[in-house]
Amino acid sequence: MATPLIVPPRLLLGPGPSLCAPEVLRALATPLLGHLDPAFLRIMDATKDRLRELFKTANRLTLPLPGTGSAGTEAIVVNFIEPGERVIVGVNGVFGGRLADQARRIGARVETIDVPFGEAIPAEAVESALEREPAAAVIIVHAETSTGVLQPDIARMAAATRRVGGLFLLDCVTSLGGTPVEIDAWGADAAYSGTQKCLSVPPGLAPATFGERAVAKLKARRTPVPSWYLDLGMIDAYWGSERAYHHTAPISMVYALHEGLGLLLDEGLEASFARHLRVRRFLDDALASLDLRPVVPEAIRLPMLTSVAIPEGVDDAGLRRDLYERFNIEIGGGLGPLKGKVWRIGLMGYGAREENVLTLTGALRDLIPRHRKTRSA
Amino acid sequence: MATPLIVPPRLLLGPGPSLCAPEVLRALATPLLGHLDPAFLRIMDATKDRLRELFKTANRLTLPLPGTGSAGTEAIVVNFIEPGERVIVGVNGVFGGRLADQARRIGARVETIDVPFGEAIPAEAVESALEREPAAAVIIVHAETSTGVLQPDIARMAAATRRVGGLFLLDCVTSLGGTPVEIDAWGADAAYSGTQKCLSVPPGLAPATFGERAVAKLKARRTPVPSWYLDLGMIDAYWGSERAYHHTAPISMVYALHEGLGLLLDEGLEASFARHLRVRRFLDDALASLDLRPVVPEAIRLPMLTSVAIPEGVDDAGLRRDLYERFNIEIGGGLGPLKGKVWRIGLMGYGAREENVLTLTGALRDLIPRHRKTRSA
Repeated sequence: MATPLIVPPRLLLGPGPSLCAPEVLRALATPLLGHLDPAFLRIMDATKDRLRELFKTANRLTLPLPGTGSAGTEAIVVNFIEPGERVIVGVNGVFGGRLADQARRIGARVETIDVPFGEAIPAEAVESALEREPAAAVIIVHAETSTGVLQPDIARMAAATRRVGGLFLLDCVTSLGGTPVEIDAWGADAAYSGTQKCLSVPPGLAPATFGERAVAKLKARRTPVPSWYLDLGMIDAYWGSERAYHHTAPISMVYALHEGLGLLLDEGLEASFARHLRVRRFLDDALASLDLRPVVPEAIRLPMLTSVAIPEGVDDAGLRRDLYERFNIEIGGGLGPLKGKVWRIGLMGYGAREENVLTLTGALRDLIPRHRKTRSA
Repeated sequence: MATPLIVPPRLLLGPGPSLCAPEVLRALATPLLGHLDPAFLRIMDATKDRLRELFKTANRLTLPLPGTGSAGTEAIVVNFIEPGERVIVGVNGVFGGRLADQARRIGARVETIDVPFGEAIPAEAVESALEREPAAAVIIVHAETSTGVLQPDIARMAAATRRVGGLFLLDCVTSLGGTPVEIDAWGADAAYSGTQKCLSVPPGLAPATFGERAVAKLKARRTPVPSWYLDLGMIDAYWGSERAYHHTAPISMVYALHEGLGLLLDEGLEASFARHLRVRRFLDDALASLDLRPVVPEAIRLPMLTSVAIPEGVDDAGLRRDLYERFNIEIGGGLGPLKGKVWRIGLMGYGAREENVLTLTGALRDLIPRHRKTRSA
């Protein structure tokens, strides 16, 4: 007999995936429908409606793309930017850098606005880059998962971009559902997210929304979209009223997203935002009691993800291994220049609860002294 | 309260998704692990081992890509073909045509070998196209899901391709698990499949395997892989020994695939192939009793998917709607030039059972007379 699944009961308090709601796990186990079944088409429509509520948008073209959050990143680049076009990308963490890499691959002229990891992109920098030369698009990360920074001034950056005729494209992977995202009010032309953060759904889909200006640009392209799989015109023909076969929708994941969004809307968006912030403040106090310092200043710190400086002399890998092995807890390590320097603590979606802070705090209190390297080591 | 999921109990006998095994549905509902958790890395390794058994290959680089079968299609095109290279694509159905479209999008010089829908690609045509001018790659669909044709002479085509230094790339979306696929014995350089056909797993992953010659070509590319999301070098760095973060693996879908592969290997590949063929023969007899004719000659007819000519004067859409509404049965309609002309009956994976043939036959016996259009209509 083949070995069965061996899955320890982890408390997921890293940068994602976060804990799934039990209702979402049950939805995943629902028997399949065909991807063109009228009963499935109704679930698709309900999912689109729920995503519009979540993104605070009236955009018709609002749907989950058939890949993880990274597929959302790729979709905005391949659909809305053509070779040779100038694109401005804010880089204050790993995910901004990735967006710049993707835009370069398709032949865009990429200009990055680089600030140190842990800071926000200054709106003035975007404005002056656009004044120097207009750009076809500006791409900004709303919540940098690699650092824990919440980007302010989104509406101001979007307005500056639109003034020069460009598209304002927004990464909402970690923010959506856990802190306000206001696509229409901010004037963002397209945005995408992932399911595995504040939506309490497993990784595998990229909820996304695309406004009229973005769709017009897509229709006016001089070159075909280089990706067939993520060609929004074809994806829209399936998810829209034509129902034309493109790919086979990931049925079970759509069930899960439908359920996760339903739970979130039943709780209420404002209530979810308040809960994430309340639990973050509870964490702040607990960290202070352990002499642990958040890396990001409070004014731009995410509610759902906190980077904490690893205390001098503490063994990062050893401690995180013990967190798994002794207490079944996952937190995240640092990425890029923050590797070995920070822990990333996620309190997202179903996992954003005070009791999880208590468990983690207790574990850190036990483990930090054990993982201090001796001077001789 | 948000509307709950409403999912009628469908018998999925179309071209996929097919019915999931109940064990697979239970695996889907397993709580999440993080994508870098040592416990999840062990599940990834076991899944890779199982895929190697299934593809009959020793290829190190064998893994599920993070998208549906169509993402597999795109992955072989974007990774192994560079702009300006000559590519030969066999087109005897919708999926061959799609491969040609994808190769054109990335700037390949595409030559198609076109034969009518319902026929196989002649090996001689591939050989003579290669003799006329060598090609960087030949892409062939092993099982054309749009028609139900099983392509013979794969090893011969692969040998001809390798003689001129090209890569032989194979689409095994519908064949894998239901009929022999012998990647190493045939000399295929890369192949991909989907989870929602003979593996009894929901749609959402593209199991794939890549041989040494393909990997060497990838490493020697002059241009970067145009897709970041499907860049195999980066995906390998995550699924291989480096464990470098690329995307967040679709955890629940990997659980499901791990379980579906375990069930298939426990049954035994030969037993699964024999079952698919036996049930197909049972269907053949049932269709004959209803005066329904398969479209594809028996010598090249798939075991798991049968295209049946819609009898003269029968209303395709009306009958399929009644199949859903009265009997909860799904079969597929025709694609491309076969639209309105055939039904596609899939008996795949968990759904390949004699009792399902009985249910479908009974339903068709009831509905066909009701859906004959009157002459005056």
